[in-house]
Amino acid sequence: MAKAQASSQAQFARVETETRPDRYRHWKLAVDGLAATLRMDVREDGGLRPGYELKLNSYDLGVDIELADAVNRLRFEHPQVGVVVLTSGKERVFCAGANIFMLRGATHPFKVNFCKYTNETRLAMEEASAESGQVYLAALNGITSGGGYELALACKEIHLIDDRSSAVSLPEVPYLGVLPGTGGLTRLVDKRLVRRDRADIFATLAEGIKGQRAVEWRLVDAVHAPSRWQQAIAGRVAALQAAAADRAGRQGIALEPLRKERSADAIVYEHVRLQVNRAARTATLTLLGPGAVPALPPDPAVLGCRWYPLALMRELDDALVELRFNFEEIGLLLLRSAGDLGRVLEIDAQLQQVRGHWFGREVLLLLKRTLKRLDLTARTLFALIEPGSCFAGFLYETALASDRQYMLDDPDGANAIALTALNGGALPMGNGIARLAQRFLAEPRRAEALLKEAPARFTAAEALAAGLVTAAPDELDWDDEVRLAVEERASMSPDALTGMEASLRFAGPETMETKIFGRLSAWQNWIFQRPNATGERGALTLYGEPHSPEFDPRRT
Amino acid sequence: MAKAQASSQAQFARVETETRPDRYRHWKLAVDGLAATLRMDVREDGGLRPGYELKLNSYDLGVDIELADAVNRLRFEHPQVGVVVLTSGKERVFCAGANIFMLRGATHPFKVNFCKYTNETRLAMEEASAESGQVYLAALNGITSGGGYELALACKEIHLIDDRSSAVSLPEVPYLGVLPGTGGLTRLVDKRLVRRDRADIFATLAEGIKGQRAVEWRLVDAVHAPSRWQQAIAGRVAALQAAAADRAGRQGIALEPLRKERSADAIVYEHVRLQVNRAARTATLTLLGPGAVPALPPDPAVLGCRWYPLALMRELDDALVELRFNFEEIGLLLLRSAGDLGRVLEIDAQLQQVRGHWFGREVLLLLKRTLKRLDLTARTLFALIEPGSCFAGFLYETALASDRQYMLDDPDGANAIALTALNGGALPMGNGIARLAQRFLAEPRRAEALLKEAPARFTAAEALAAGLVTAAPDELDWDDEVRLAVEERASMSPDALTGMEASLRFAGPETMETKIFGRLSAWQNWIFQRPNATGERGALTLYGEPHSPEFDPRRT
Repeated sequence: MAKAQASSQAQFARVETETRPDRYRHWKLAVDGLAATLRMDVREDGGLRPGYELKLNSYDLGVDIELADAVNRLRFEHPQVGVVVLTSGKERVFCAGANIFMLRGATHPFKVNFCKYTNETRLAMEEASAESGQVYLAALNGITSGGGYELALACKEIHLIDDRSSAVSLPEVPYLGVLPGTGGLTRLVDKRLVRRDRADIFATLAEGIKGQRAVEWRLVDAVHAPSRWQQAIAGRVAALQAAAADRAGRQGIALEPLRKERSADAIVYEHVRLQVNRAARTATLTLLGPGAVPALPPDPAVLGCRWYPLALMRELDDALVELRFNFEEIGLLLLRSAGDLGRVLEIDAQLQQVRGHWFGREVLLLLKRTLKRLDLTARTLFALIEPGSCFAGFLYETALASDRQYMLDDPDGANAIALTALNGGALPMGNGIARLAQRFLAEPRRAEALLKEAPARFTAAEALAAGLVTAAPDELDWDDEVRLAVEERASMSPDALTGMEASLRFAGPETMETKIFGRLSAWQNWIFQRPNATGERGALTLYGEPHSPEFDPRRT
Repeated sequence: MAKAQASSQAQFARVETETRPDRYRHWKLAVDGLAATLRMDVREDGGLRPGYELKLNSYDLGVDIELADAVNRLRFEHPQVGVVVLTSGKERVFCAGANIFMLRGATHPFKVNFCKYTNETRLAMEEASAESGQVYLAALNGITSGGGYELALACKEIHLIDDRSSAVSLPEVPYLGVLPGTGGLTRLVDKRLVRRDRADIFATLAEGIKGQRAVEWRLVDAVHAPSRWQQAIAGRVAALQAAAADRAGRQGIALEPLRKERSADAIVYEHVRLQVNRAARTATLTLLGPGAVPALPPDPAVLGCRWYPLALMRELDDALVELRFNFEEIGLLLLRSAGDLGRVLEIDAQLQQVRGHWFGREVLLLLKRTLKRLDLTARTLFALIEPGSCFAGFLYETALASDRQYMLDDPDGANAIALTALNGGALPMGNGIARLAQRFLAEPRRAEALLKEAPARFTAAEALAAGLVTAAPDELDWDDEVRLAVEERASMSPDALTGMEASLRFAGPETMETKIFGRLSAWQNWIFQRPNATGERGALTLYGEPHSPEFDPRRT
């Protein structure tokens, strides 16, 4: 129906998705026994793109990629750490939030994906506090505004210096005509449980709130006079360290650089292949199964970063971030796998065995986070299950996360998928339920019944009968059916598909996390498109200019 | 900070918000004992605006205002009715959904408010099925597409004729580049519990799904051959009537036309005054308290439509709809009340007494719906509580629904508010919880403690201490504090405020209903702004034209 418009040239250079501490430009990670400090000290001239300076610890995507890396490394490389202090290396400034000049110059898709990524990083910090026992403590040693305060909101405890000038604030609405969209509004009322009339005042009060009132309004947990600041933070750190004493013996593993080769239309990792077809605006993401599966050693952490599920998920996660930032025009992702189903089941069984060990738990949590990143990837996902594939257990979650599952019904029934206990809730979606349970919301007992036999293999015919796949064409029909589905999808409005997928993928309960991506971000995306923000006389456009914005007053 | 842009001229003539069956142009309401039929037979030349024809039972706001009226009247005027058959008076067509040419010509604010209103009407149908025992049955006697199917989705049962041509479909994504935004996507997966891969196929399949497959996929409850159609529907109606036999003795009341006088800048009802200040872009909505309170008669229904809470809420509801469609440029609503607090408490006590009677229940449900309409009104709401006001019990819910509550701290403490048992959950928000409970999410016991003493009066100082109001300035400060708050609000981006309020007002749980307004509608509003839908080469713009749309392929 529709012809592709000539794809606009990528506005910016490629985003580097990978980093490591010795390359950080904006953060300093210091580990001291059971405590770590993440000190934000953004280089003004260290922006990812030309055209803006990162003043006052304002951030861009490059700053957040470093933070995401640090949060992840702390879990794997420093598992003994029980408390992470997030603070600033600058005087009198904690963080001024996302850089406004960067935002102003960004395309709409970049803005949206930037916010999504930073939201994922904030949620990873919260998950570390809640599920890994690495408690994030925000030590706000200066002005904390906008995304800076949203960073604090993602910590378990917020401490603010009481120096008569340092306030927390969300000035986006009054100054920029946009929302505090990195979870700020949602966390105010749904996490901090700030009374909504107070949240309304706070989110419209550009200068923010400081001192005891910030505590009374639940915006921070404590304020401390400058003379007591170091001591107060040290005291809380000591208390949290004491509660984490049992972590002392943990030996971390090194997260080595990914093995990643890039060519014009492909990125080839050890276990993941991303192949793009720019003309068709599709990409194929192939997950390769494991080689020989080593036996579990007494301390599973010695398996290290090359252990298959960990290596695979680090690569998949990186590929998804690549896709979002470096392949905007790809609308449809074909998800394939190739490998030995039995070996995937062996790995899956090992994952279940090591769940009680810190290393096993962290691998499962990484799996969970990566699968959630897949759920939130605004591209159509079709899983193609063909002979030689290995969608079993945790790997089948990628197919369950897809919008459709096509499975080739081969004559000898060799093409198979498998469910395992891990499909039963160990890898929940952001809404808190298992993908299999969500699939069968209409028949909750069916999910239970299918799992009772786990691990269980299903041929295409069996999978279709069980409701585990969408369609099971035979060899005669396969090519045509898949080709038509892909072509049809490519003919539809990318925006309508994004909105549709965001609605259909999140059936069932909502959580603070899904509210951030569903409610808050959808409104923010709308606002980013509105002339009142990004038009010629919009507030975001005119920020820092001598002119006042002019608004179309019509309320919707 | 910002100057008001010259307000664009209202694109259209004023919307008439009130109607009654003898004026319906598009629906025929027939009541026969315990059953009613709502037959859609849209007049092609009966559009609310010039420029489009309402072919194939497609609808515009005028059609939906009639439907909303009928749904409401059935509850009050025909309370004996236990089943409502929704069907079409046209051959081979049930309903083609919202008129596309109407949508295409509408401004963005009108589109958004049109969708919101139709969503509220669909929810009122569901509430009638669930809480009033008036079960809506969709008898789809022909093609049912887009908003037509969304209308069916709001019914408790869906029956489709199996004539080889009548299908249900949601062609918005493939044909128009927008979403089925009247709850369609949400109801597919969250109400009908359609498996999400099937929902994905269905919502991208313009021709829709018919026959047995529609049943298998849970899209409809039953299909019937044309030869059995009348009999099958009659059979279901008979069964539902039998289950409603105990309603037979109910005597309805007449909903007389509202007493409503309009001048250039005001609408004056019997109990409600809407006064707009176009220069300031504010409006004052004053709720007048009751006159003398009549004693409750043995059959409370004889109180009729002039009974204070019923009359008040009909007027408030109408005023809110007026505000949305006829006063787009008003950004801030100042909510006042004036009257005798004691009399409001008497009415409140009567409401509690008659909860068990159908009439009392219907009045409470109307209160609930109207308050939800207030929650969803995309204008800032400030409650101003001054001496002579009467915000008690159910009336205080309007203040609780507001973004802020300002209460004048008068020297003699005569200015008072009151809580009653009705604030404890009888009038829940769309998210299922009481406004008072939501206010105190951080301290659930406080709401309980406050209600334990109910009915209880609070002076300004007491209300402030109890957390029931935002601020309590004294007489010296009142004018300045309110004026500054109003002026500040007027300086901010209307869109940012809409998005902020939509986030802060709905703390706590989400329900299918709040997902429709929060998640689905927010995405739809975004899509309505996107060039891929409404740009020169967008799909909505080019619908019905000989040209294919051209899409910017970048995914967000």
